[in-house]
Amino acid sequence: MTPPLIALEPWRSLPHPPPTSASADTLDILVGLFLLLLAAKVGEEVFRRLGQPGVVGELLGGFVVGPYALGLVVPGETAVVLSEIGVVILLFTVGLEIKTDELLHVGRPALLTAVLGVIFPIAVGTAYALVTGQPPATAAFVGLALAATSIGITSRVLTDLGVLDHRFSRIIIGAAVIDDILALILIGIVSGAVEGDLGLATLGLIVGALGFVGVGFAVARRARGLKREVFTWPLFADTPLVPVFLLTLGLAILAAFVGLAAIIGAFVAGLIVAETEAQDEIEHEIKPLASIITPFFFAVTGAQLDLGALTDPRLALGAVVLAILGIATKVLAGLIGAHGAGRWSALAVGVGMAPRGEVGIVVVTLGLSLGLLTSSLFSMVLVAVVLTTVAAPLMLNLVIPRAAAESEAAAARLPAPGSG
Amino acid sequence: MTPPLIALEPWRSLPHPPPTSASADTLDILVGLFLLLLAAKVGEEVFRRLGQPGVVGELLGGFVVGPYALGLVVPGETAVVLSEIGVVILLFTVGLEIKTDELLHVGRPALLTAVLGVIFPIAVGTAYALVTGQPPATAAFVGLALAATSIGITSRVLTDLGVLDHRFSRIIIGAAVIDDILALILIGIVSGAVEGDLGLATLGLIVGALGFVGVGFAVARRARGLKREVFTWPLFADTPLVPVFLLTLGLAILAAFVGLAAIIGAFVAGLIVAETEAQDEIEHEIKPLASIITPFFFAVTGAQLDLGALTDPRLALGAVVLAILGIATKVLAGLIGAHGAGRWSALAVGVGMAPRGEVGIVVVTLGLSLGLLTSSLFSMVLVAVVLTTVAAPLMLNLVIPRAAAESEAAAARLPAPGSG
Repeated sequence: MTPPLIALEPWRSLPHPPPTSASADTLDILVGLFLLLLAAKVGEEVFRRLGQPGVVGELLGGFVVGPYALGLVVPGETAVVLSEIGVVILLFTVGLEIKTDELLHVGRPALLTAVLGVIFPIAVGTAYALVTGQPPATAAFVGLALAATSIGITSRVLTDLGVLDHRFSRIIIGAAVIDDILALILIGIVSGAVEGDLGLATLGLIVGALGFVGVGFAVARRARGLKREVFTWPLFADTPLVPVFLLTLGLAILAAFVGLAAIIGAFVAGLIVAETEAQDEIEHEIKPLASIITPFFFAVTGAQLDLGALTDPRLALGAVVLAILGIATKVLAGLIGAHGAGRWSALAVGVGMAPRGEVGIVVVTLGLSLGLLTSSLFSMVLVAVVLTTVAAPLMLNLVIPRAAAESEAAAARLPAPGSG
Repeated sequence: MTPPLIALEPWRSLPHPPPTSASADTLDILVGLFLLLLAAKVGEEVFRRLGQPGVVGELLGGFVVGPYALGLVVPGETAVVLSEIGVVILLFTVGLEIKTDELLHVGRPALLTAVLGVIFPIAVGTAYALVTGQPPATAAFVGLALAATSIGITSRVLTDLGVLDHRFSRIIIGAAVIDDILALILIGIVSGAVEGDLGLATLGLIVGALGFVGVGFAVARRARGLKREVFTWPLFADTPLVPVFLLTLGLAILAAFVGLAAIIGAFVAGLIVAETEAQDEIEHEIKPLASIITPFFFAVTGAQLDLGALTDPRLALGAVVLAILGIATKVLAGLIGAHGAGRWSALAVGVGMAPRGEVGIVVVTLGLSLGLLTSSLFSMVLVAVVLTTVAAPLMLNLVIPRAAAESEAAAARLPAPGSG
């Protein structure tokens, strides 16, 4: 009756014990996440009490505890993944505030801003690198690193200031989506050219990216007025949030698979849900999730800020010049592309497109791995990219109140098309 | 004027590029997390439509996509950390529903249930292992692995069925906290004895654990009626959730540092917030966060279920016998310890204490690393531990409605002390 407690034949042993909760590693990671969140919130507190944008405080909080300052936390796999989920949730909430109609209304200025905002930085960045003696392929990569906008930071500032429903905000968002498609195509072309493999693969990228955004947009148009039940029919959906979160994460992953930024997929998910009757409820329910997860995006981004690089005066000067050129070219693109929206609004569009964030970091990392950037050039461009990311919200804080006043004055003179 | 673009001296290069979002690794991990969440929710849907507890569906969903079945997802660092944060949030929400007064009222039955619920499984498990020919130290470890209760699964069932405010639920929760302290002490003593290092360290463990729970309890008592402002004074606290989440994660980490389970710290944080005026608001705000994060706990736990081990008949029989002994001894402890609460309530207490979950897994992993368990014995006890975890909610689903009816009938006869 009694079974032998030990099987006599060697039974397949588990290669390693399954992951257990409460292991020492897990505890270390939890401590790191706790410190990142705490630092971001303390930084936000300090900056808001100084009347500055909280997001800069979150960035600097991450910097202070991160590897380039106190070294208390080196963001590892989990922090980076949480940071990505955080910016996915952030861009979902941005999409959730926008109707596709409103995006179509700003189609022309958004397209012009995006195209000029890619051409100008590439031209100026490449020219600058050539003038300072870089070979052409390297110079092109320096220009490319300055081309792509990261919308995460600006989204947060627009949300914090409550101006997402202004025309200039729509232009920024629309331009950022187009910008990401252009950047994807350009990165594909440049890497293809460097590796001598241009053609079908690049064409596939372009078709995939345009197809994803086009289909997503069409689905959003057809989602208008869909009942809440479309998200609540499963029993597990005690609230519509869980199905909506799965949709968001799923589209983010799909966007990444076609080569776009994951946040474009999240934004499209937001656009879709924005047209349904679940919009209000989801807007309410996503907030607690966003308040806990999105700070990791800013803290982890801040932890990449290597201010130490600025102690080398030549490197510092190069990085600052590149950052200024990067901001000035985007501002110029905004002033031209969005000039019809008013002077301050056009300026807000330009400044809003200035942060390069993680897209710029991806480009410089690619340049390093392709052997086109030396490590010092890599560091310099990286610092320039991160400087644009930190400077933009400080500038937006000054520009946006004026742009909002201008836009409200304009709206008072002539009612917006389609408003009732 | 033009700064050299390349610094002539080799400038310190970054050892590796900073983590970038949208890297291939991050995308893989996001896909894994997406599949785990989707599988958990599909499993929950199937089980709820069958009238069974959703949590078992989440466990089996994790199993199906996990390494022991389809192999689509092998939970890595991020999944394990999210799973830990998930159970931390879960136990926080449990604490949030409980007043310290209510815990003190069930102090005697909870203590008796916990003490008997540790003694019985150790005695029976050790005896069984001795009878089947194991050396004494190994046999003691088999018993120890059956001793500790993991409250995560039961908490979820009690929450789903809406019976957290019943007396039997308080007894289960109180007994689980005491049980965790006892398990910590016993694990400390056994590992100390094996390593020949008993004494001050073990005493330190005991003092730390009792001190943590005692101080936490005292703070909760003094938190009664604290204004909402205690959590909302920082500007970053647009809602009280962020400071409360920091408190919860902080106490979870502190509990883990003194050697307790992290969830005990989270539970204490819930007890503290439950006494303040922010309780209602937090209860509302934590739900969306919990609905997204806690499924990872169940899915990751399910992914550890090695049903394949049951294809070896001797191993299967051993695991099933151990699981049955493990459940029977906890049920007996509940029937004796909580007999004053009524027959069905006492049974609910016993069954509620049956899941061993991650605490049992920690013990068997420790036994393996100390060389006390062979790998086949390790696998067998591990399967037994996981079987108790999956079987308990199915049994609770049958017992709890009767226990709730009994407890309501008793409450109708004599009003609870302090009510009214």
